[in-house]
Amino acid sequence: MPELRRDPIVDRWVIIAENRAARPGALVNASDSPREPTTAGLETCPFCPGYESETPPAVFALRGHANDPNASDWRVRVVPNKYPALVSETASQPDRGTYVPRSPGPESLFAAAPAFGVHEVIIDTPRHVTTVGQLTNEEFADSLTAVRARLEALRHDLRLKHAIVFKNVGCAAGATREHLHSQLMASNLVPPLVAAELRGAERFYDTYRQCVFCRMIDDECASGERVVDQSSAFVALCPFASRFAYEMWILPKGHASHFGSINDGDLADLANLARRAIARIESLLRSPAYNLVIHTTPFDSLAIEHYHWHMEVFPRLTIAAGFEWGSGCAVNPVSPEAAARVLRTFDKGSASPGSR
Amino acid sequence: MPELRRDPIVDRWVIIAENRAARPGALVNASDSPREPTTAGLETCPFCPGYESETPPAVFALRGHANDPNASDWRVRVVPNKYPALVSETASQPDRGTYVPRSPGPESLFAAAPAFGVHEVIIDTPRHVTTVGQLTNEEFADSLTAVRARLEALRHDLRLKHAIVFKNVGCAAGATREHLHSQLMASNLVPPLVAAELRGAERFYDTYRQCVFCRMIDDECASGERVVDQSSAFVALCPFASRFAYEMWILPKGHASHFGSINDGDLADLANLARRAIARIESLLRSPAYNLVIHTTPFDSLAIEHYHWHMEVFPRLTIAAGFEWGSGCAVNPVSPEAAARVLRTFDKGSASPGSR
Repeated sequence: MPELRRDPIVDRWVIIAENRAARPGALVNASDSPREPTTAGLETCPFCPGYESETPPAVFALRGHANDPNASDWRVRVVPNKYPALVSETASQPDRGTYVPRSPGPESLFAAAPAFGVHEVIIDTPRHVTTVGQLTNEEFADSLTAVRARLEALRHDLRLKHAIVFKNVGCAAGATREHLHSQLMASNLVPPLVAAELRGAERFYDTYRQCVFCRMIDDECASGERVVDQSSAFVALCPFASRFAYEMWILPKGHASHFGSINDGDLADLANLARRAIARIESLLRSPAYNLVIHTTPFDSLAIEHYHWHMEVFPRLTIAAGFEWGSGCAVNPVSPEAAARVLRTFDKGSASPGSR
Repeated sequence: MPELRRDPIVDRWVIIAENRAARPGALVNASDSPREPTTAGLETCPFCPGYESETPPAVFALRGHANDPNASDWRVRVVPNKYPALVSETASQPDRGTYVPRSPGPESLFAAAPAFGVHEVIIDTPRHVTTVGQLTNEEFADSLTAVRARLEALRHDLRLKHAIVFKNVGCAAGATREHLHSQLMASNLVPPLVAAELRGAERFYDTYRQCVFCRMIDDECASGERVVDQSSAFVALCPFASRFAYEMWILPKGHASHFGSINDGDLADLANLARRAIARIESLLRSPAYNLVIHTTPFDSLAIEHYHWHMEVFPRLTIAAGFEWGSGCAVNPVSPEAAARVLRTFDKGSASPGSR
């Protein structure tokens, strides 16, 4: 069972999930598990219609006309991850136990607990496409609708504190299935990076009575230097301290702390703008590997004044090396100003999908 | 010129170094800079003897008999990085300016400063070998001697606060040259991960009057469960909260906070033990990509009671994906207990080097 461990020196959490070593391509070069040649193709893809029985049963689906969520007539399908990094105790651990390891002390330097939570896969579309730019606006809106529905459902589980939603596109971004999909991990902890954002934003708000994200969006829209694209309700920009070359964030222009509260109109607007902005990256960089992450508020503080949900997109063009992993400081060879400048001109991706 | 930028929301630093995009293979898939087929081979390797003029002039060398540090008669050679992520202001920026950007405020959300410092390459050996296991014990000791000498020299520059030393072995670990080398980056900031270790260790010391690393080493040696190898003065172990599969730390058993203070006897012992322990990883995982990092104290607090220098080795068998980069929490598919168990049995690598 996956285990959550706390480092005895720094306040760092690690999930030890030995079950995930069994994933296709999970370990590169390891003699006990050689890397698979590539991700699965059309014939054997368990995310394609007709192969529903190869995934765990669906927990949610947007359907056409059929009533069975495991039938092939679906537009988006959400299933439990077959190799979860988090496990729901009710499924595999009847006793509740202690969720959060204690702080280290001389009697207990090594603190661990079951890695409790929910790990789901959102199959964005029945079509075997591999990038966000290949989705139609309607398909991306369906996928985001499923994300919103799952956040709304999971927040009522009082054992869960937070959910993070992400997408791995391409092998170099950690994808082990090429059929486009998102993942959702909900747990009883707020992830360290989200917790750091919450702390930083609260500190700024306490001093200036202003959401630091709202302020940043105002400044960025006023200067335009790092803005890639925008709609009436959303803006896509390369953040000032981008860790990755061509990193891009997509944020609602109006204050909104919880993604799950987005209305249908804004969701459709977001799908259009985000798809178009990501397609710019795909066109410019010729289908690079990338990750997409949604950062939103914890379930016990959904509507707050100081935090602002957003989407982060990281192209994976460089390899984090010894300096980055050893220091915790990123080195980015492309300035966000240069990145935004060239991405603004690359609107081939905004043409209608399917033309690629 | 490389620039240090502070994120307006979290306390995160990024080095924007556009000059590094020119490195061979710096960007994968980017249309403006396609990845080179592979790292350079023997014929054109600028780190091999006879090609000294292809690197910047040496700042340090351990030599055989010749007096010229740029002649080919050397055992270890230290040269400035041709594509530095940090720049010495005296070389390229005559005015001192402000080193550290201010905290964000409503008038200055975006804080930046020149990325000041020294970025050097330590060419471990004149032989064109590609892994630590291929070094002789004497060669690895020479390389560590050069590191010690550079730390001793750089700590006298009052503008520098800290140096991190690391090694990238293999493309998947970020190496762009295959000829084995280390790098040293010294700057006016303590890197975030080292700062976090210092804070955590100080907190533990303040409460328990004990170095948390010393305590961890005692506990680990007593149980032996995660110990891979040891000598009289050093231990190699898989840390309890390993972020990477087969992650291994090498630590002095006696309390020692600053790597630069190591004596010749311990340095030779370290070279033997570390080379043998790393060779176990290379044998078991069939020459995986990996990083090696040395964490040591800042220059203004060399000998302290609460911190303990150490070497961290990270095999790069998995790819950090959207969850890891989006959450700040690692997922490791191999428990450190299982890793140590199999590495203990894999002592083929301890045979004499050159046999590989």
